[in-house]
Amino acid sequence: MPIENLRQLYQKIIERYRDFSLLTSIESLLFWDQQTMMPPAGVEIRGLQRSLTERFKHRIIRSRELGNLLKEILAHPDFSSLTQVEQRNIELIQRMHREAVAVPEKLISEIKRQETTTVSKWLIAKKRGDFKVVEKELGRLIELNRELSRLLMDEKEVSTLYDALIDIYEPKVSTEVIDPLFSQVGGRLRMLIDRYESEENFFTSKEMDVERQRELVLKVASFLGYRFDGESAWGRIDISEHPFTSGKYNDVRVTVHYRPGDFTYALFSALHECGHALYDHNLPEEWFFTPVGEPCSYGIHESQSRFVENIVGRSPEFWRYLISILDKLTNGKVNSDVLPEILREVNRVRRGKIRLEADEATYGLHIIIRYNVEKELFNGDLKVSELPSVWEEQYSEYLDVEVSDDREGVLQDIHWYIGAFGYFPTYLLGNLYSTIMLQVINRECKGWRNELEEGSLIRVLNWLKNNIHQMGKLYDPLVLIQRIGGKVSHQPYIQYLEDKYKGLF
Amino acid sequence: MPIENLRQLYQKIIERYRDFSLLTSIESLLFWDQQTMMPPAGVEIRGLQRSLTERFKHRIIRSRELGNLLKEILAHPDFSSLTQVEQRNIELIQRMHREAVAVPEKLISEIKRQETTTVSKWLIAKKRGDFKVVEKELGRLIELNRELSRLLMDEKEVSTLYDALIDIYEPKVSTEVIDPLFSQVGGRLRMLIDRYESEENFFTSKEMDVERQRELVLKVASFLGYRFDGESAWGRIDISEHPFTSGKYNDVRVTVHYRPGDFTYALFSALHECGHALYDHNLPEEWFFTPVGEPCSYGIHESQSRFVENIVGRSPEFWRYLISILDKLTNGKVNSDVLPEILREVNRVRRGKIRLEADEATYGLHIIIRYNVEKELFNGDLKVSELPSVWEEQYSEYLDVEVSDDREGVLQDIHWYIGAFGYFPTYLLGNLYSTIMLQVINRECKGWRNELEEGSLIRVLNWLKNNIHQMGKLYDPLVLIQRIGGKVSHQPYIQYLEDKYKGLF
Repeated sequence: MPIENLRQLYQKIIERYRDFSLLTSIESLLFWDQQTMMPPAGVEIRGLQRSLTERFKHRIIRSRELGNLLKEILAHPDFSSLTQVEQRNIELIQRMHREAVAVPEKLISEIKRQETTTVSKWLIAKKRGDFKVVEKELGRLIELNRELSRLLMDEKEVSTLYDALIDIYEPKVSTEVIDPLFSQVGGRLRMLIDRYESEENFFTSKEMDVERQRELVLKVASFLGYRFDGESAWGRIDISEHPFTSGKYNDVRVTVHYRPGDFTYALFSALHECGHALYDHNLPEEWFFTPVGEPCSYGIHESQSRFVENIVGRSPEFWRYLISILDKLTNGKVNSDVLPEILREVNRVRRGKIRLEADEATYGLHIIIRYNVEKELFNGDLKVSELPSVWEEQYSEYLDVEVSDDREGVLQDIHWYIGAFGYFPTYLLGNLYSTIMLQVINRECKGWRNELEEGSLIRVLNWLKNNIHQMGKLYDPLVLIQRIGGKVSHQPYIQYLEDKYKGLF
Repeated sequence: MPIENLRQLYQKIIERYRDFSLLTSIESLLFWDQQTMMPPAGVEIRGLQRSLTERFKHRIIRSRELGNLLKEILAHPDFSSLTQVEQRNIELIQRMHREAVAVPEKLISEIKRQETTTVSKWLIAKKRGDFKVVEKELGRLIELNRELSRLLMDEKEVSTLYDALIDIYEPKVSTEVIDPLFSQVGGRLRMLIDRYESEENFFTSKEMDVERQRELVLKVASFLGYRFDGESAWGRIDISEHPFTSGKYNDVRVTVHYRPGDFTYALFSALHECGHALYDHNLPEEWFFTPVGEPCSYGIHESQSRFVENIVGRSPEFWRYLISILDKLTNGKVNSDVLPEILREVNRVRRGKIRLEADEATYGLHIIIRYNVEKELFNGDLKVSELPSVWEEQYSEYLDVEVSDDREGVLQDIHWYIGAFGYFPTYLLGNLYSTIMLQVINRECKGWRNELEEGSLIRVLNWLKNNIHQMGKLYDPLVLIQRIGGKVSHQPYIQYLEDKYKGLF
C-alpha cells in the first residue's frame, strides 16, 4: 500500500512535468515556424502564443500542488526504493520547482518586459553603432538579473551572483571551476596563436551556387545519419537568417544559411546544427518528456555540435573523403589538388574582433573576454557605462586588435541584450568537453580517423550516442565527463589544436 | 464602484477566453505543420501536443472559477450597461461553459478514443471496400454521440438529438428550419438536373505543368487580395494532400493540391480556400481572441468559400478576365476561342456517386442524402448495419445512380468516422447563404459583374468584408442573414443556377 502510494505520487509528478515538457516542444515549433515559415504579419499573434506557453509552463512548475506532491514523495519512507532514474527525475523537478517558487512572478514579468525593451534598443544601437543608445536599458536588465541571481543563490547553493547565472545553463559548474580552466586555456591559446597565426588566404575559390550548396548540405547531413527524407524522416533542413536547431526526439529540425560566395559557411553550419540535432534525437525513448530525457547542459550540447563541426568537419580525414563529392559537384573546380590549401583555409588562425568569425584557437579568447566582463559586472564593480572601454582593453590585451566601433565591439552579440548572462562560458566549455571526449574516443574507437577518410563515422557516432546522448540529463555535466573517463582540463583542447596545426602549417 | 467591479469581472472573463482562443490558434499551427511540413516520425509527439492543447482548452472553459465569474457578471445589477458586443461575448462564453460542464470529462475522452479507433478502422474498410470492417466501431461512436446529444439538448434548448448535433456547427439552425428548406431545394434541383444534365465532355485539354499551375494560383490569390508575399504578407500557400485553410487574423494559411492533368482542380481549390481565408483574416481587429471575433458558423464560412469558388470562379465574367492570363501561361493553348467550352465544362451538370466530384446542382442532393441519413440515425431508428443499403436506396432515388461498392458509397467521406455528425448540412446551407448574399450584392453593388470582367472584384470583396466578415460572431447565422436584408429560402440558389445554366447550355 505505501509502495503503491509512492508509485502514484511519482506518476502524478511525472504527468505534470510531461505537460511542461510538451509545452516546451510546442514552443520549439512556434519558434521554428517564426524563423522559417510564418507570414510577417503574424508576428504579434506569435508573441501572444509564445507568452501563453511560457506562462502555462511557469504555472505548472511553480504550482503549490506540485510542491506538495514533491514534499510528500521526498518524505516517503520508501523513496529510496525508486530507481536511480526516478530519483533523478524527482531531484530535477524539485530543483526547478524550488527555483521557480523562489522568484516572484512580478520579477519574471519585469525581466521579460525589460528584455523586450532592451533588445529593441540594441537593434537601434547596433544600426547607429552607438552603445550609449542601449546603455540605460541594459543597465536595468542587469540590475533585474542581479536581483534574480540573489534570489537563486540559496537554491543553487552557490556563493556568487555570477555563479547563480552560470548554473542556469551549466548546472554545478562554478567560477571556481572555470577560473583556473579558462586562465590556463587562455594562456596556452595565446601561445598557439602566436605560433600559427597567418595573414595568408590559402584558398579563395569558395563560390558555389545555392542549389549545389544545398546538395552538399544534404550529402553531409545524410553522412551524419540525420534523416530528413522519406517515410522515416525525423528532421528537415530549411533556410533561416541564422542557422539553428529546434525540437527534440522524433522531430528535430535544422536550418542553414547559404552564402553564394562561400560554400564552407553552409557546410560548417550544417555540420554544427546536425551535431546538435543528433543529440536531441538520440535521447532515450523511454525517457521522453521526463527531466532525464532532456540534454545534459548547454555546454554538453555545444560539445556535440563542435565535435561534428570542428573535430570531424575540419579534419584532414573528413576532407579527404569530402573532396571527391566536391569534385563532382563543382565539375572538377574543387579537386584533390587544392586539398592542402582548403585544409589550411578552414583551419587558418587569425586574430579578429568578431566572435562569430573566429577560428578554433582565437574563439576561446573571445569567450574568455566575455566571461571576464560578465564576472566583473555581477561579482565585481564594473559599471555598464564602462563596458565599451573595458571591451576595448580586453580585446587589445587578449587579441591585440583595436576596437573602435561598438558594432564590432560590445554590440556584436545579442546575448546580453536578451538577458542571457552566464551563457557565453558554455561555448568554450563545449570546446573543452568535445576534446575530452575525443581523447576517450581515440582510446575506445581506435582507427576511427582512417574509417572517416573512407567515408564512415559510424563508430564515433555510436560512441557519442551511447555515452553522451543516451545519458540524457541523468548526470550533471562534470559528472558525465567523469563517467566517460574524462577529466576537465585545458590540456586535451590544446593538445588537439597543436596536433592538427603541426600537421597543417 | 459596482460599475468598476463589472468591468473587472468582464476583463477577467475575457482574459480566460483569450487563453482558450490562443490555444486554438496554436492548434491550427500544429495541424497546418502536420499536413505540410512535419517530418513523418514526428506524428506521435504531434498527437501528444494536440491532445495537450485540447485538454487545456477544456480545462479553461469548464473551470469552476469561470463559472463563478459568469454567474457573478450575469447577476450584476449593471450588466445591461455593457455594450451589445460585450453582452454577446458573455452570452457566447456562457453557452460554451454550460455545454462543457454538461458533458462529463469521461464521455469526452471516450468519444476522443472512439474517434481514433473508428477512423483507423475506416481506413482499412476503405482500402478493402467493406463497410462491415468499421460497422461495429462506427456504431459505438454513434452511441456515444447520442449520449452527448442527450446531455446537450437542454443547454441548447433543442427538441431532438440530431438538432443538438447540428447546433454545434450551425447555432440556432434546427431541423425545423432545414427540413422544408432542403425538401424544396431538393425538388427544384432535381428538375434543374433533369433539364441540364449532360454526358458531354466540353473541354478536355486541362493538362498544365505544376510550375504554371502554381503561377496561376498565385495570380488568382493576388486578384482576391490574399497576401502571401512581401513584408506585409498575412498568408502563405503550400501543398497538402487535401486543400485546407488554417489560422485566423494576421496568419491565415491555405494549401492547394496540384493535379498535372487538370489545372482547374488547383484553380478552384485556391478560389475556395482563399474565400475561407479572407473571412478569417477580415475579422475585426478590436475583437481578436474574443468570442465575437470568431467566424459566425460553419455554414456562413462555407458560404464565403463557395461565393468565391462558384459564384465568382465559375462565372462567365471571371473567365473572360482569366482567359488572357491562361493564354499567356499556356502560350496560347488555352485561349478565348475555347472560352465557351471551358465555361460549359466547369459548370457541367452530371449525376454521380462522389460528393467531392459533384457540380453545383447535384452537390445539394449529395448533402440532402447525408442529412436524411443522419436524421434517421439520431432521431429515427435507422441501424448502423442498414447504412449501406439505405445509402444505395437514397442514391438511386435522388441521383439515379447505382452504388455497389462501399468505397464509392457510405465510406467515401471521413466525417462520420471522426464523429462529425451534423456537419454535412452546413455545406448546403453555405450554398444557400451564398446566393442569398448574391441577391443583396446584386442590389447593392450594381454592375459588379462588368467590373469582374475587367479584372476587379473590389466592391464585392468589400461588401463581404463589411457585411459578413466584420460581423464576426456577433449574430447567429439566421440573424446575420436577416440583418443583411436576406431571407433564408431555396429560391435564390435555384434562381442563380437557372440564370447561369440558361446562358450556358
